[in-house]
Amino acid sequence: MKFLKNKIVNEGKVINPTTLKVDSFLNHQLDPALMLEMGKEFKKRFEGKKITKVLTIEASGIAIGIMTGLALDVPVVFAKKKKPSTMANLYSATVHSFTKKIDYDICISKEFLGPEDKVLVVDDFLAMGNAILGLENIIKEAGAEMVGVGIAVEKGFQNGGKIIRDKNIHLESLAILDTMEDNKIKFL
Amino acid sequence: MKFLKNKIVNEGKVINPTTLKVDSFLNHQLDPALMLEMGKEFKKRFEGKKITKVLTIEASGIAIGIMTGLALDVPVVFAKKKKPSTMANLYSATVHSFTKKIDYDICISKEFLGPEDKVLVVDDFLAMGNAILGLENIIKEAGAEMVGVGIAVEKGFQNGGKIIRDKNIHLESLAILDTMEDNKIKFL
Repeated sequence: MKFLKNKIVNEGKVINPTTLKVDSFLNHQLDPALMLEMGKEFKKRFEGKKITKVLTIEASGIAIGIMTGLALDVPVVFAKKKKPSTMANLYSATVHSFTKKIDYDICISKEFLGPEDKVLVVDDFLAMGNAILGLENIIKEAGAEMVGVGIAVEKGFQNGGKIIRDKNIHLESLAILDTMEDNKIKFL
Repeated sequence: MKFLKNKIVNEGKVINPTTLKVDSFLNHQLDPALMLEMGKEFKKRFEGKKITKVLTIEASGIAIGIMTGLALDVPVVFAKKKKPSTMANLYSATVHSFTKKIDYDICISKEFLGPEDKVLVVDDFLAMGNAILGLENIIKEAGAEMVGVGIAVEKGFQNGGKIIRDKNIHLESLAILDTMEDNKIKFL
């Protein structure tokens, strides 16, 4: 997606060869028009999949999630990283973040995911893929179907994309980073 | 806002006389069309204010924030509750949550807020108002102007609304809860 790649080149900051900072438009300050375009692009790429629900993870997945839900005209559910005191019946999974070097739990109320659902998972970044695999486990536990995964920025030099594609999951990444050596961003 | 009030009456769950659960459309599962309507309503209510930026707090403010930004065609910034490892120069404030009985810090990168900004603050709930006052402090520190506060659901039986209006801040709440006695929701 050219618009997103241009934004990454113009505003992204390469912190080191594996870390890209895009907080001027994707995960701290947000560009609403770009987010809506990404949502429409996911709608196009997953055409005909009869999606009933968009699933993502707080916090930085929410903006792209809600715009995808708007484009598809379906509800959006975001997994929480802390169990709210008012949430009783829930699905949960443990996710290891290689970036932050921590384990965290994600949870979703059983009210909002069931066997009737065809779920599109979206997120801002794909690195090692653990958050996506955590959501896949929850979708399986709910008896729902995961029809695909939509990612804004995939780190092509990390393993997540390969792991997910090897499972025959339909993965669409709007920008795939190839290398970021010498502060130069190259896409796949 | 009638659409929102109807949703609250039909789908909201009164947990006790001061706690309303609206996680089927506002803060766990999200209704994108409703969120967009709320964004457009804030645009109307703050007409002529020359807003340059929408400010909110992760996680449940993000959806309403991005839709308000889309309606106003301005960027959205969400305050983070944990300082990211890649964020150096930041504004921060401490917020006491009466609901969760904890203190937490919110922070915003100095890159994304400055003296040129006219800021509309939005959030899903207003109870005691501490999160809004934390954001007000950050806006002051940045030398920016807070032109108003847009809230989805104000708890009219708690003090936040009065505190903010007494400061002559332009506050617009789309639904104001009066009482929730005997499981019956009444609006002001």
